[in-house]
Amino acid sequence: MVARVHKDRERSEPVFVSVRQGNEKMIEVLRIGHRPARDKRITTHVCLVSRAFGADSVVVDTADRSVEKTISGVNRRFGGDFRITTGVSWSRHIREFQGTKVHLTMYGASFEDAVVRIPKAAPVLVIVGSTKVPAQVYEMADFNVSVGNQPHSEVAALAMFLDRWFMGKELRRDFGGRLKVIPSARGKKVLDTSEEE
Amino acid sequence: MVARVHKDRERSEPVFVSVRQGNEKMIEVLRIGHRPARDKRITTHVCLVSRAFGADSVVVDTADRSVEKTISGVNRRFGGDFRITTGVSWSRHIREFQGTKVHLTMYGASFEDAVVRIPKAAPVLVIVGSTKVPAQVYEMADFNVSVGNQPHSEVAALAMFLDRWFMGKELRRDFGGRLKVIPSARGKKVLDTSEEE
Repeated sequence: MVARVHKDRERSEPVFVSVRQGNEKMIEVLRIGHRPARDKRITTHVCLVSRAFGADSVVVDTADRSVEKTISGVNRRFGGDFRITTGVSWSRHIREFQGTKVHLTMYGASFEDAVVRIPKAAPVLVIVGSTKVPAQVYEMADFNVSVGNQPHSEVAALAMFLDRWFMGKELRRDFGGRLKVIPSARGKKVLDTSEEE
Repeated sequence: MVARVHKDRERSEPVFVSVRQGNEKMIEVLRIGHRPARDKRITTHVCLVSRAFGADSVVVDTADRSVEKTISGVNRRFGGDFRITTGVSWSRHIREFQGTKVHLTMYGASFEDAVVRIPKAAPVLVIVGSTKVPAQVYEMADFNVSVGNQPHSEVAALAMFLDRWFMGKELRRDFGGRLKVIPSARGKKVLDTSEEE
């Protein structure tokens, strides 16, 4: 059912190379409370959502080579220059970050109000916790922001925040990768641009 | 840091009791390929997102009492009548479902186009796969729909689909639960309406 579509030499230019407009600055995601034994898959989803929804980089507090490898593999096949670093002190990272610190939490103020108040001209650090978030994080953040006030998922909250931040255009970005999925109503169509090289 | 806010007898009525408008019908989420040993947390996030983003029920193919318990506990504390069933044949469930079957996949057509084409007056089954989705699912679905065409997360894709379906109003729903989070710029404020009973 997988149709491999050959490279079309005439194919049109990508609609977006970047989701950045004018003076918009970098967005980094900081994942805290990562426990490699328990959280590998959720943290991997956090990293993949960061990449797919337009963030530039992700930092994970606990060292985890396998999560790094997964993300590098996706970059290699699907493109882009999304960066991942693991094994970083979260408190020092928040303290030293030059920009606006936004903490996603179900206890925070409405993210839709926050998105219009956060300055677009400075870098943004989006902090995403696991089950228990240390109290200091609420104090160190410039904004504590919630996506609804029901318990759900940091993966969903992150996607929603980035979606509102980029106003939906993050999903139309062209990553320029070797593999390109061609949207299809039925089955799978994947363009492999390396086949003719 | 947790402030427990006492029930305010004068507090205003909820803005939304339901996210349904007029003739909008039920939305059910079907999670397929659930492996209790590997997928418990991701499937739990799928269920919590279904509930928080306005679906009425979730069905999981493999029996898993612990996921059921987690969701029932959230209902008990945070309200609503969201239903969960596990241990259901996915193929029979899709076949017998009376309504529109929408499969979320990174290979599908744009979800934003699909959301306006899917009839609002019939029930909707949103099918969410795990790593490998059987080819039949693509055939049985009325719509194969993607949230972007980069690899990311079924948790994020589900949240985004439901968000566009309900046009953002799902997050302002009042679940009428015992616990109610009061949005706060700093710290945690939780209203426990049982304290005076």
